[in-house]
Amino acid sequence: MNPAIYPKMAVIGCGLIGSSVIRAARAAGAVDKVQVFDLNPQSRAEIERLGYADAVFDDAAAAAKDADLVVLATPPLSLAAAAAAAAPGFKAGVTLTDVGSVKGGVGAALASVAGEDAFVIPGHPLAGTENSGPAAGFSTLFQNRWTILCPLEGREDAPYQEALTRLERFWAAIGANVEVMDERHHDLVLAVTSHLPHLIAYNIVGTAADLEAVTQSEVIKFSASGFRDFTRIAASDPTMWRDVFLMNKEAVLEILGRFTEDLQALSRAIRWGEGDKLHELFTRTREIRRGVIAAGQESAEPNFGRDRQP
Amino acid sequence: MNPAIYPKMAVIGCGLIGSSVIRAARAAGAVDKVQVFDLNPQSRAEIERLGYADAVFDDAAAAAKDADLVVLATPPLSLAAAAAAAAPGFKAGVTLTDVGSVKGGVGAALASVAGEDAFVIPGHPLAGTENSGPAAGFSTLFQNRWTILCPLEGREDAPYQEALTRLERFWAAIGANVEVMDERHHDLVLAVTSHLPHLIAYNIVGTAADLEAVTQSEVIKFSASGFRDFTRIAASDPTMWRDVFLMNKEAVLEILGRFTEDLQALSRAIRWGEGDKLHELFTRTREIRRGVIAAGQESAEPNFGRDRQP
Repeated sequence: MNPAIYPKMAVIGCGLIGSSVIRAARAAGAVDKVQVFDLNPQSRAEIERLGYADAVFDDAAAAAKDADLVVLATPPLSLAAAAAAAAPGFKAGVTLTDVGSVKGGVGAALASVAGEDAFVIPGHPLAGTENSGPAAGFSTLFQNRWTILCPLEGREDAPYQEALTRLERFWAAIGANVEVMDERHHDLVLAVTSHLPHLIAYNIVGTAADLEAVTQSEVIKFSASGFRDFTRIAASDPTMWRDVFLMNKEAVLEILGRFTEDLQALSRAIRWGEGDKLHELFTRTREIRRGVIAAGQESAEPNFGRDRQP
Repeated sequence: MNPAIYPKMAVIGCGLIGSSVIRAARAAGAVDKVQVFDLNPQSRAEIERLGYADAVFDDAAAAAKDADLVVLATPPLSLAAAAAAAAPGFKAGVTLTDVGSVKGGVGAALASVAGEDAFVIPGHPLAGTENSGPAAGFSTLFQNRWTILCPLEGREDAPYQEALTRLERFWAAIGANVEVMDERHHDLVLAVTSHLPHLIAYNIVGTAADLEAVTQSEVIKFSASGFRDFTRIAASDPTMWRDVFLMNKEAVLEILGRFTEDLQALSRAIRWGEGDKLHELFTRTREIRRGVIAAGQESAEPNFGRDRQP
């Protein structure tokens, strides 16, 4: 096996993503030693029990000490505080990254606490499930998924570029495809592909739960006719998603505005019986599905393959 | 094997649902002979090739002739015309049902053309995939799914009730759970659990396709972060869904109005940074997901089980 890309990795915050990074990195031999900090004593006990780490700490700086790579995997709004708490442990030349779903301002915030000798390279693996916590992690979570890195603006210097290449190698080693993008564009792309879908899913599930004429048990019983697809992403981690919407407010409201306009036009077409308009949209959207499947981002099986087929 | 529930079945319109009814009914021994009509010559050729039917007709009345059960499986807006075309073939005592997603007015429309000797019992199997056409059908489509029957109001007479019981046995034989409901309530329940989810999915996929700042290939590439779940149902049959929204206008607009109100409240909470409100909703929606899984209507596997797990 090749030598580890980062001999020592520290993971600060160890839920679904943090624990999956650890399991994937160990499976790939991309790290030798793993040190973990988590704020939650129960999670720390679970991480010990699951044997993810060589050492588990209740102090972020102690976990970060001497690490070659520090991965911040806390909820997005806690990143800056987590970085500040870990910073006293940073060695010169450490690479500091994160896995948060919003990137605007993250580079600047981390750079302001990390010190000049750290290479700050914010990142975002586009992977996850609707489950949370350290026990939800698994080593193949990033396979065939994208990880977007958002390097600091103006850092064209060779040491920074080398650090970037090394971090790209790390993500590739654990199965991800890597894309480099500026943070503003990242937040707009994710507002469309992830944040709006989650917001809509949370909203429709909430609307259904509040009806008087249809009971909650009817909604659940008859959910297979479409509704259940939305419940999956509406079961995602509430704290993380609260942070996402608060941090990516501008892009989310912009995309939400367009969505609402389109929905009003659709509502009007239904009210006035404009069948051709409906048919035209419903035909156009099939193409996108074909693109998603052709790009290998989805199973081509009906119903995601969740039903057994003959 | 028990004797067939209906010795001869006619299926009028043979797409995903019609062909699945045939395959399921044959597999269960619920019918002996199958006669099929489809308006589309290509579909007729495909049905012949797939060997679904004992005879394929280009005339609905000929297909319906002497059948004990006639299943109308056309797009919803074509039901009345299909029934009228098939009616000359009906024998006395035939059971006439359909599989349409909207039930309001269907019973009256079918009864007006079926004649007094027919038992009209509208129905709706809550099953389907995003694929269309005769080749998309499969025999297990209805297993562990609900079929809702909406008997005609005021038909408490014994022969009608016997016909209803027989049709319930038929659906149970091909794997479905059967529920009886009045057509108005059916349309409201389905507006929530199926029609609104489809409308929202079509809409969000349309919004994403129209953006200028984010390319369609970026949307596709990064779709795994939430968007792809919506593309599945936005790939459903355009003609059927156009008909659903035109026929169930009142209930869909009512539920859509509530959804939009809720979405505006959510939008306002994001704009004003009301994290507690967001967190509260995002926590509440997890419960519904648990209910859906507990009711056996969904896989408990993360990502619907579509990703391989260690």
